Amino acid sequence: MERFDLVVIGAGPGGYVAALEAARLGMRVAVAEKDALGGTCLNRGCIPTKTMLHTAQLAEEAAAGGEIGLCTGPVTVDLEKLQQYKNQVTSRLSEGIGQLFAKQKVTLFKGTACVEGTKTVRVYGQEQPDTLLEAEHILVATGGCPARLPVEGVDLPGVYTSDGMLFESRRFEQMVIVGGGVIGMEFASLYSALGCKVTVLEAAGSILANLDREFGQNLKMILKKRGVDIHTGAQLSAIRQADGKLCCVYEEKGAQKQAPADAVLVAVGRRPETAGLFAEPFTPAMERGRILVDEDYRTSLPGVWAIGDAIGGMQLAHLASAQGVNAVHRMLGRPAPMRTDLIPSCVYTSPEIASVGLTADEAKQKGIAVTVHKYPMSANGKTVLTRQERSFMKLVAEENTGRVLGAQLMCDRATDMIGEFATAIANKLTVEQLGCVVRPHPTYNEAVWELTRG
Amino acid sequence: MERFDLVVIGAGPGGYVAALEAARLGMRVAVAEKDALGGTCLNRGCIPTKTMLHTAQLAEEAAAGGEIGLCTGPVTVDLEKLQQYKNQVTSRLSEGIGQLFAKQKVTLFKGTACVEGTKTVRVYGQEQPDTLLEAEHILVATGGCPARLPVEGVDLPGVYTSDGMLFESRRFEQMVIVGGGVIGMEFASLYSALGCKVTVLEAAGSILANLDREFGQNLKMILKKRGVDIHTGAQLSAIRQADGKLCCVYEEKGAQKQAPADAVLVAVGRRPETAGLFAEPFTPAMERGRILVDEDYRTSLPGVWAIGDAIGGMQLAHLASAQGVNAVHRMLGRPAPMRTDLIPSCVYTSPEIASVGLTADEAKQKGIAVTVHKYPMSANGKTVLTRQERSFMKLVAEENTGRVLGAQLMCDRATDMIGEFATAIANKLTVEQLGCVVRPHPTYNEAVWELTRG
Repeated sequence: MERFDLVVIGAGPGGYVAALEAARLGMRVAVAEKDALGGTCLNRGCIPTKTMLHTAQLAEEAAAGGEIGLCTGPVTVDLEKLQQYKNQVTSRLSEGIGQLFAKQKVTLFKGTACVEGTKTVRVYGQEQPDTLLEAEHILVATGGCPARLPVEGVDLPGVYTSDGMLFESRRFEQMVIVGGGVIGMEFASLYSALGCKVTVLEAAGSILANLDREFGQNLKMILKKRGVDIHTGAQLSAIRQADGKLCCVYEEKGAQKQAPADAVLVAVGRRPETAGLFAEPFTPAMERGRILVDEDYRTSLPGVWAIGDAIGGMQLAHLASAQGVNAVHRMLGRPAPMRTDLIPSCVYTSPEIASVGLTADEAKQKGIAVTVHKYPMSANGKTVLTRQERSFMKLVAEENTGRVLGAQLMCDRATDMIGEFATAIANKLTVEQLGCVVRPHPTYNEAVWELTRG
Repeated sequence: MERFDLVVIGAGPGGYVAALEAARLGMRVAVAEKDALGGTCLNRGCIPTKTMLHTAQLAEEAAAGGEIGLCTGPVTVDLEKLQQYKNQVTSRLSEGIGQLFAKQKVTLFKGTACVEGTKTVRVYGQEQPDTLLEAEHILVATGGCPARLPVEGVDLPGVYTSDGMLFESRRFEQMVIVGGGVIGMEFASLYSALGCKVTVLEAAGSILANLDREFGQNLKMILKKRGVDIHTGAQLSAIRQADGKLCCVYEEKGAQKQAPADAVLVAVGRRPETAGLFAEPFTPAMERGRILVDEDYRTSLPGVWAIGDAIGGMQLAHLASAQGVNAVHRMLGRPAPMRTDLIPSCVYTSPEIASVGLTADEAKQKGIAVTVHKYPMSANGKTVLTRQERSFMKLVAEENTGRVLGAQLMCDRATDMIGEFATAIANKLTVEQLGCVVRPHPTYNEAVWELTRG
């Protein structure tokens, strides 16, 4: 039996960041991980998709480069090479986490963990005998996995979730993506840039339904121009096989329709991964697979904490990391440092989409009187010279104080500019306090000045 | 004689922004401009260089795309097409200013202006007869032009300043760039990306000598790897012609050396453009061509104000715009809204460079005790997956308060992220107030969190 101050289960962005933070604060930390370090995010999520999108967007830009003086032969993407590169990137970052663990003296146990008591975790390794760990605190950060759709045909060959699709180096001519959320739209961007004919089936009335309406409206127009066929209010009823092809049967406006495909990607959300994690009777209160926690990430089991996708919510890597940091500080009786009430959402399409805080609609629902500033970026120099389409920034501010409450950006580099708005909201800055700042020219960011005046 | 509240001389980023701001505040405004709207910045500066760098950097990325799965034939840049595209971009933006003038009822007089009295400006048009304008206020925003080097051979054919080089569509095999400041280094990046063998001669001990030392050190290594030959402490003594080629003769470490070239770019700074602007005796106090102003941009002539490159200083488009806005507000007796004491500097190389506020060295010179945070971005996911080299962020904070005093960024998208640091400094935020904010993953911007902990 080895003793630690903290055993973290899962080395994804929630668990590994929490482990490093705990070690930094002087705790003796162990991490149990059954798979590669970095979790979904690094191995089957954020990093692989962005790596593949990077090449795909470069291909798209290069192919359209004739007008701006770029000469190339025909531009294509070698999917096997891209897979190799993506695997290099994820291995390098995964190894980096291992190095940080070693440097900070975090002990890694490879295997599947089971909570066997409020202070004991057993790790079932693949080769070595089981290891029993004892710890003052246990932090569950087991993440999640793609949700399955209860529909006929989802087990057919050629039907993927993001997990499988990210390792596929075959070229598809036609793909149906079921789900028009963030994951679905990023894959639609990716595969259309790779030359695949993409059809999106979204059951809700719009794509990106959880974000500001204008994002979905504009992205739909942009992707339509790039040949993506987007159906909203379209309910998948079955996936069938015929003549060596797949066919998605769906209902749209009362009519039954069909969309043929070489491959179907099911991107209908993610669910917590908690099966087999707790040995009876040491099971915390849960709700549909999701571990219930209080505002400090304490489960109903004393000494057992949980964060990230395992507790549901926004299911974003950066939220899991922030929760992990906060949980560790609370374990030590310190105040929680990270503002987890203010989480940016991003979509890595082109242009990028990023949002933080309240939208105008959300403010209205909460009964907050707001002013909405919008700046269409068609006169912004960088936007013009990089030929970005339909770019805009929106700012939502409290009417009587001028305090920034939210921002919605759809433009190049939006994912790297949303942080400033989060900083502004977190620190109660006003529109005027953002507007007094001189920003460099030419940048996308200088649009913030225009935005604060509109 | 036409009467206005304000006559602005020069429609560059200083003048046109001031004119629009004055119109927004209800003033009757005229602008005199002898050339295209947008001034140096839009026609011979920021916008054309960034447009050309955009294509050149895309070419460089595409050519190196094999490893990341991109397949192209040989990648080249068609300089004539690129010139056409650049001219399209500048025309579009220049016309945009004309449209804004029309919309805001700013009257444009095309021609060369001369201040003939404290309240009168005469505009010498090319075709129409002279126009005499009367105004309560005159704002001089005539900008600057490339400085000339008092050296033998600078008038030879093939010797350019940035003004001429930006309109050149010939392909050069060898170029010598005299001057390793921002303009010199951006052209070195541009032409090396276009396949030209570039030699830089800088008289000072380092390139980018006005910025944080680490920028120059790192950029030198990066450009060296790309084949750029950089000589510091190298004093040009003459440019000579021999065998249809140019040859730069320079002194380095006491030895006389030579660098051959098809073209020489002289990028040794810019000087104010004020010749012929004032009719005797209506000439304000000046110093070496630079108009002297007080903290509100008033010249020594009552009612005559001056901003931008014409008054010297940092000579940046965004500074001129901010000065213009402030000058207009002061004319109306209002407080100046823009924080002109806090001006970001950028270099549009790859990776980008951006800086605002104090460097560690500057703080030391001022006797301010500071903590310096540095985060090398080699473990940042986006930096790894986009294969950026030598990227880092630095933060300078006051030791006893934790307040952010300066930031130096060298990484992709730095020019769009520096605004957040300017916001932080302007609003007296602390390192902790920047660090509590959750930033999206994966982004370059998430490095700010690491930075605040270092």
